[in-house]
Amino acid sequence: MPEKMTFEKMIANLYEERKYASIRDVFKTMNPADIASIFQGLEEEETKSAALFRLLPKELAAESFVEMSPELQENLIIKLSDNELKQIVDELYLDDAVDLVEEMPANVVKRILKQADPETRAMINEMLKYPEDSAGGIMTTEFVYFHPDYTVADAIKKIRRTGVDSETINNCYVTDSNGKLVGTVTIRRLLLSDEDQTVGEVMEENVISVNTLEDKEKVAEAFRKYGFLAMPVVDGENRLVGIVTVDDAIDVINDEATEDIEIMAAITPSTKPYLKTSVFSIWKSRIPWLLLLMVSATFTGMILTHFEDALASQLVLVAYIPMLMDTGGNTGSQASTTIIRGLSLGEIEFKDIFRVVWKEIRVAFFCGLTLAAANFLKLLLFDRLDITVALVISLTLILTVLCAKTIGSILPILSKKMGFDPAVMASPFITTCVDAMSLMIYFRIASLLLHI
Amino acid sequence: MPEKMTFEKMIANLYEERKYASIRDVFKTMNPADIASIFQGLEEEETKSAALFRLLPKELAAESFVEMSPELQENLIIKLSDNELKQIVDELYLDDAVDLVEEMPANVVKRILKQADPETRAMINEMLKYPEDSAGGIMTTEFVYFHPDYTVADAIKKIRRTGVDSETINNCYVTDSNGKLVGTVTIRRLLLSDEDQTVGEVMEENVISVNTLEDKEKVAEAFRKYGFLAMPVVDGENRLVGIVTVDDAIDVINDEATEDIEIMAAITPSTKPYLKTSVFSIWKSRIPWLLLLMVSATFTGMILTHFEDALASQLVLVAYIPMLMDTGGNTGSQASTTIIRGLSLGEIEFKDIFRVVWKEIRVAFFCGLTLAAANFLKLLLFDRLDITVALVISLTLILTVLCAKTIGSILPILSKKMGFDPAVMASPFITTCVDAMSLMIYFRIASLLLHI
Repeated sequence: MPEKMTFEKMIANLYEERKYASIRDVFKTMNPADIASIFQGLEEEETKSAALFRLLPKELAAESFVEMSPELQENLIIKLSDNELKQIVDELYLDDAVDLVEEMPANVVKRILKQADPETRAMINEMLKYPEDSAGGIMTTEFVYFHPDYTVADAIKKIRRTGVDSETINNCYVTDSNGKLVGTVTIRRLLLSDEDQTVGEVMEENVISVNTLEDKEKVAEAFRKYGFLAMPVVDGENRLVGIVTVDDAIDVINDEATEDIEIMAAITPSTKPYLKTSVFSIWKSRIPWLLLLMVSATFTGMILTHFEDALASQLVLVAYIPMLMDTGGNTGSQASTTIIRGLSLGEIEFKDIFRVVWKEIRVAFFCGLTLAAANFLKLLLFDRLDITVALVISLTLILTVLCAKTIGSILPILSKKMGFDPAVMASPFITTCVDAMSLMIYFRIASLLLHI
Repeated sequence: MPEKMTFEKMIANLYEERKYASIRDVFKTMNPADIASIFQGLEEEETKSAALFRLLPKELAAESFVEMSPELQENLIIKLSDNELKQIVDELYLDDAVDLVEEMPANVVKRILKQADPETRAMINEMLKYPEDSAGGIMTTEFVYFHPDYTVADAIKKIRRTGVDSETINNCYVTDSNGKLVGTVTIRRLLLSDEDQTVGEVMEENVISVNTLEDKEKVAEAFRKYGFLAMPVVDGENRLVGIVTVDDAIDVINDEATEDIEIMAAITPSTKPYLKTSVFSIWKSRIPWLLLLMVSATFTGMILTHFEDALASQLVLVAYIPMLMDTGGNTGSQASTTIIRGLSLGEIEFKDIFRVVWKEIRVAFFCGLTLAAANFLKLLLFDRLDITVALVISLTLILTVLCAKTIGSILPILSKKMGFDPAVMASPFITTCVDAMSLMIYFRIASLLLHI
């Protein structure tokens, strides 16, 4: 059976047949992200990838380069001549150049900065000062701005002149003589306005901007809420220093969701794709949590040991421990997950804590009642248990669900208030808490009703 | 202590003092999303909100209306006169009008459609035919397009003329005489090109488009991958029928992450904010899963009952059941969560199944070894257990971790292959599977080594 054709194979075949012009043509029909994945697939044969990379037109080369993994970028940079590297660096948008410098080892960074022209180098160094997780760390400094006295015609002329170097011309910014942000104007507004009007007359004065040091997740939240295409970033004196564009905001939204999901499953978050992560790195991101949770589970064991005699006299109780523990864990996780996501999306705040807990208590009451009723019938009809034992198990169920949902809703909110990531208070942690609690409830009720 | 001032209170105060002009001025400084949250905060006093809504300038009224919850929208529509409703409907972008019609009850829909002009009504009805979760369901039909023979000057003139009704002018589309999509051109490209060139000369011919029936999550994936601002939607014959804009893609990305997270926690997903969801709805979205998982946990109980005699002779084994079950559940969830997220982001595909499982087996081996070693020492030194019993527990740990990670990595991939949502195979489900398995391993090893 012939193997399935892939783009990687097609390119490799063309390369072996020395059809370089055709390779160039093929690449030209493709999107940078697609070209990058082809190079990613060729990763093993490094010499070939450098030769292929040279076939790309300058601009496409830079755009594809940005989409590649840091490892591949490093390999390529090592293979490229100083002049070739300079061409790439010149074509990069400033924020991409900064990302690159942040990812590369020191010796490669030196080569990159040496090839950048002095102005770019100064700007890269300036931007490296902002924390990686801040608005300053994800912004670009290449944007179009006007003085409010510009006419619309002048503004459009300036866009025609300088627009090619800006990351976006859809949103332009208006700054006064001191560089302070006074308004924004979209290219659409400019095109639909009279050419003789001034920018100051047509601009939007109610600008939502962020400070350079604002957390990037807050920036992403603003994009999500307002549907912006770009957002201005200002310093402490409201001077415009950069803009964040929607594509970078999407990356933040995505990374944020992945991070939440990973933390919720007790994994130290990473931004590397799974298949590219080494076994050792995966082990390292998982084992501390497993050890911690294993130690916590010891308490549950201690409770069981403590009630060993009671258990020995009513061994039937042991069979229902997993069901009680699992149900407690599941109900608690449902509550905590809902609250954690609500906190992430900004739908729930600290001031809502009483509304949230009151809602969860009512939900828990109805869930507990339903589960206990179903269970009680099953215990009597199928397991043919003594009615008192069935009662013990069903009552435990109601109380466990109540406690689990209360804990599951309070802990994430409190943890956010104290400055921790609420996602830590997800399934594994809640399960461990609830396990111990459900056993204590179980034995307390059992000793009351069964006199053990 | 005086209560904290809120926008809602400020507006309510201004309204009581009949300062209507000032309310209008205040609203004009605000963003539609912010105005909508103020109305959301006023929800109880319905009469007031309709009166306030009438104070908004027409365009801002429509834009704020779109951001409100369906309940509030319905309340407002009921209060508005036919003429007022018509003004809103006229100002709505088509995709927002379609969303509105999809959310409202039948009698309200009738009123809305009656107020829409015949052309809009026809377009709304056309778009209602697409499934809500498809590209057609989230697209808008208001875009700018040219024939390739247009000159750049003509194109810019057309934008000036029709741009005000289009959702975006940043990306424009090029269609031939049959309406087939042949290229795209950005406003930036047009402005930077010579006025006498034709659109056909300056357009980008390699267009990535989606079919109307494509799943909206696939569309969101393309936005994430390529960093688009808009994407063309075509029918089966490559005729351009609409575009999806990045703000709608962000909503899909976000809803998708929330949905994944909810399904992973065994909750039926909903798109309603938590605080707006009734206790009954929350109960309904959680209880089926809890019942299902409770029934599954019965198997674990049956295994315990089966080994009751063995347990009675070695009661010390009971104390370690929670630790083994929890650790198994946690390690399995780590694997399944990582794989589920990888599948969602398109980083992992079915063909990777062997690479994934092999990676997880190696990770499991090292995790299992670390946990077992730590545990073995603790059992001997702190719990002072017999060495054979410690060995039984530690060996069980290694095997449980191996099985848990294997199951946790295979199930999501298989479930996606069979057309189910892989997120179902997350923590609660994996925990239930692993619980039963870990007990069987435990008792098997115990009976071999302890001869019980």
